[in-house]
Amino acid sequence: MSSTTTTPKSTTLTNLIGYLGSFLTCITFVPQVWQSWQTKSVGDLNIGMISIVITSTLVWLWYGVRIKSGPVILANIIVCLLGCVLMYFKLTFRT
Amino acid sequence: MSSTTTTPKSTTLTNLIGYLGSFLTCITFVPQVWQSWQTKSVGDLNIGMISIVITSTLVWLWYGVRIKSGPVILANIIVCLLGCVLMYFKLTFRT
Repeated sequence: MSSTTTTPKSTTLTNLIGYLGSFLTCITFVPQVWQSWQTKSVGDLNIGMISIVITSTLVWLWYGVRIKSGPVILANIIVCLLGCVLMYFKLTFRT
Repeated sequence: MSSTTTTPKSTTLTNLIGYLGSFLTCITFVPQVWQSWQTKSVGDLNIGMISIVITSTLVWLWYGVRIKSGPVILANIIVCLLGCVLMYFKLTFRT
């Protein structure tokens, strides 16, 4: 009975893995924002990538609101804001 | 009876929004990989960001396998591969 794959213990582990993934996704662009702010150099950053980050997080945000998922909403607000900061840098730090 | 928020129609829309989000997430790094390949210049790309992209997608992949979610697995394999390409560029195109 303790060898099934849906024991509370494995469910807890699955959730922990999900929360770890969410946390890492949230901080993905933190070092990039930090470097871009320090160097004021963003020429190698593709504006298409930044645009898709912002667009995709807005779509995920919409999805998160519809399925009423707090973690999805929170994670995508954070990543969207970091994407907006990168876009601001991209449009401001003209090289 | 047609004004509830869980009609098949709104569920379909929610799923479509989710698929759109997945698609956009999958292609996020495509324009960045293309630009980096064309310019051979990756100095402004932060290696920490690329590392977190690879790590987070591996964690999400693990999560996807555990919850047996095809879309989560597929999307994260694609983003992980693009992250690995960016890491290869970052380590190869020394400026």
